[in-house]
Amino acid sequence: MNKVKFGIAFVALFLFGSNRSFGQNDSLQIRSLFNQIFTAGKCYARLDYLSNAIGGRLSGSPEAEKAVMYTFNELKAEGFDTVWLQEVMVPHWVRGIKEKAWFESNKRKVEVNICALGNSVGTGKAGVKAEVVEVHNFKELELLGTEKIKGKIVFFNRPMNPLFIRTFEAYGDAVNQRGSGAAEAAKYGAIGVVVRSMASNIDKYPHTGAMAYQNGVDKIPACAISTYDAELLSAELKSNSKLLFSFTQTCEMLPDVKSYNVIAQINGSEKPDEIIVVGGHLDAWDNGDGAHDDGSGCVQSMEVLHTFKALGIRPKRTIRCVLFMNEENGLRGGLEYARVAAEKKEKHIAAIETDAGGFTPRNFSTSADSASLLHMKQWEYLLKPYGIEEIVSGGGGADIGPLKKQNVALIGFGPDSQRYFDIHHSGEDTFDKVSKRELQLGAANITALVWLISEYGL
Amino acid sequence: MNKVKFGIAFVALFLFGSNRSFGQNDSLQIRSLFNQIFTAGKCYARLDYLSNAIGGRLSGSPEAEKAVMYTFNELKAEGFDTVWLQEVMVPHWVRGIKEKAWFESNKRKVEVNICALGNSVGTGKAGVKAEVVEVHNFKELELLGTEKIKGKIVFFNRPMNPLFIRTFEAYGDAVNQRGSGAAEAAKYGAIGVVVRSMASNIDKYPHTGAMAYQNGVDKIPACAISTYDAELLSAELKSNSKLLFSFTQTCEMLPDVKSYNVIAQINGSEKPDEIIVVGGHLDAWDNGDGAHDDGSGCVQSMEVLHTFKALGIRPKRTIRCVLFMNEENGLRGGLEYARVAAEKKEKHIAAIETDAGGFTPRNFSTSADSASLLHMKQWEYLLKPYGIEEIVSGGGGADIGPLKKQNVALIGFGPDSQRYFDIHHSGEDTFDKVSKRELQLGAANITALVWLISEYGL
Repeated sequence: MNKVKFGIAFVALFLFGSNRSFGQNDSLQIRSLFNQIFTAGKCYARLDYLSNAIGGRLSGSPEAEKAVMYTFNELKAEGFDTVWLQEVMVPHWVRGIKEKAWFESNKRKVEVNICALGNSVGTGKAGVKAEVVEVHNFKELELLGTEKIKGKIVFFNRPMNPLFIRTFEAYGDAVNQRGSGAAEAAKYGAIGVVVRSMASNIDKYPHTGAMAYQNGVDKIPACAISTYDAELLSAELKSNSKLLFSFTQTCEMLPDVKSYNVIAQINGSEKPDEIIVVGGHLDAWDNGDGAHDDGSGCVQSMEVLHTFKALGIRPKRTIRCVLFMNEENGLRGGLEYARVAAEKKEKHIAAIETDAGGFTPRNFSTSADSASLLHMKQWEYLLKPYGIEEIVSGGGGADIGPLKKQNVALIGFGPDSQRYFDIHHSGEDTFDKVSKRELQLGAANITALVWLISEYGL
Repeated sequence: MNKVKFGIAFVALFLFGSNRSFGQNDSLQIRSLFNQIFTAGKCYARLDYLSNAIGGRLSGSPEAEKAVMYTFNELKAEGFDTVWLQEVMVPHWVRGIKEKAWFESNKRKVEVNICALGNSVGTGKAGVKAEVVEVHNFKELELLGTEKIKGKIVFFNRPMNPLFIRTFEAYGDAVNQRGSGAAEAAKYGAIGVVVRSMASNIDKYPHTGAMAYQNGVDKIPACAISTYDAELLSAELKSNSKLLFSFTQTCEMLPDVKSYNVIAQINGSEKPDEIIVVGGHLDAWDNGDGAHDDGSGCVQSMEVLHTFKALGIRPKRTIRCVLFMNEENGLRGGLEYARVAAEKKEKHIAAIETDAGGFTPRNFSTSADSASLLHMKQWEYLLKPYGIEEIVSGGGGADIGPLKKQNVALIGFGPDSQRYFDIHHSGEDTFDKVSKRELQLGAANITALVWLISEYGL
């Protein structure tokens, strides 16, 4: 035991030794941020509005326009130092009428639940009807080749692997079927693809999400099928490999339209040229109401500025809330924000993104160098009472990614990931799935981190 | 930075030095437990049955009897070394017909949502009708005294304090209104009490829970009112302190009935006399289906034994799954289990309870002495990849509490607490509120801890 006790004593010494600059006052200040958010915060009510009064707000849609005006007016009304709209041209993809699909097998017709993948072409009103080839990866596709695939519908059916504890890893492991499946299948003459929903559970909701075509390869229609129906189809194919699958979707890509990133700023008192960005994305898929993805991130980012204002805290560095447009199917907002920042030679020291759902907080991860990471890790004990286990090396978020070239420390807010892919990009991503306390706890931890960076830099 | 780097190097040395007995093999074994549970576990399907096929299963009810037989048969079918029923007499409180309540104010009649508190007497079919005195604690009650309270209904309206980050602390801070409010109010001549639901959110679901009378004090009827209606009533009282409140509940306490703790055991190969208990409680309030409280704990405890069996692991120490009866309104199962253990001079080395909901895992807390705690803390790094942040000093659980006298290390499983009191003891505690992955992740961490204790003792 002596060794253990000595070790603990040393660890204590080490912690106190290196924490000289952080202490009781920081702890009290952070407590006041939490108290404000839990008693007088606005994030939950704002999420209610974004989700229920506006709803799914895909780039270019009337809902996206409403979301821009709603958040702009909310931020404007708070009286921050500057609130503005940053113009950006965005893709305008529309889903059209509700998709239909069924398979015909042994004289039975079985309806299944699908939705078009974002950016996909339509099938025409007559739909696409063909035999189905089930595969699980691109290697299988290659082995089957043109001979077996030409004229068929390719059914990608590799599930998210439940053994990844962090569900984002399972998503990353499965999502190339959705993103590139159509282009890969088209190379062998497929006439359509059906992709098993990127979902961690089995239910009847199809999950949409972006896909992309490749230059020089036929654009074939692509849809997602619910996990329940993917299992059904797969089982039926085992007994009848000749069954016919039919689907109809009238989605299409229209010309780009003008939209906006919504931005608000509180100027720093000591180092106003050093900017800390906190943001999420305002656009959301149209099948749910985008409460978790990423309404939560937007209202949490707005809450950071609101909390500073409500408590009369003037940050030492400049804090900027950015609600990015078009993360889901183009990333135009993130790209434009970074372009303008470079053009204006702005000095961003950190960019925090919250785009992993409004769930209970677990960690922050950052692309910062090891010296900055060690600096931030000294704050862990200040956030630990509020659910942040640690600050770790890692990523940021899609919208802030383009800032990386400008040597900005990217930081991702990491809430618990267990429930996210049950609802992500599906009709189940709705306001009632968000816990008010979890949302607030996330907002408060993000606010605390922003405050620490504004006080102590990186 | 040098100091920091040296510190980290030393910490690393310290950790590896003290972890000599735990390593790669432990890590692989634990991974295999998780893989089994995430790919072939039974806990979610069993919870579905307990919640949806049986439902709320209050002590003495037909549902409680069904739950005993269902779990007994499930455990029996697994072929564990011993599976038995431990007889225990339990209180038999019944709710009667659905409660009704309203207030009359300025010639309006406003219906509100209430439910009888567990163990309360009824009002008779005519109900109780009187003016209302709103208080927030027992001190206010005392200051008002008999003069202001006699013949009135006391309305306890102290909310759960949202500033407690761990919601169990807010619950502990508020729950004496529910447990003792009726007895305290009766001392001053109140004829009934209405208690604001112990809930962390505002909605229309009343939350029940146990209350107790005091010897020599009148037994007056007690009910819980939904937080939404508590706010409504409080607002109305501000403008009309003479409003009349009426409620009717036909609940009653019947004679004790025979019930059972359900127990299953795998004998240890090296130290069979050293017993590790893992359990939850089988009874659940009747207004929901008891999915989180504590169906989750029951199926997780059953999963521990199932996982050992499925993987062919023979533990070194004896592992016993105990599904306790009557935690909610009497604790008779926990008391009887401890009594029999003492009578038989059984040597329990640890008792783990999972009764804080089927949410994502965060920690284990234990009553063990500091030497045992330090021993266990060396396992933290093995559980950390699966969501357990730490093993801390603290409590156990209600059912295992009576074992404390026998010098047993009590251990409580601590899942994230943010959502629990939105649904706890209300009609919202239903199967659809449980995330399959969160439930499985909890079961797997508990199984891993049981395995570590069975291998290495405490």
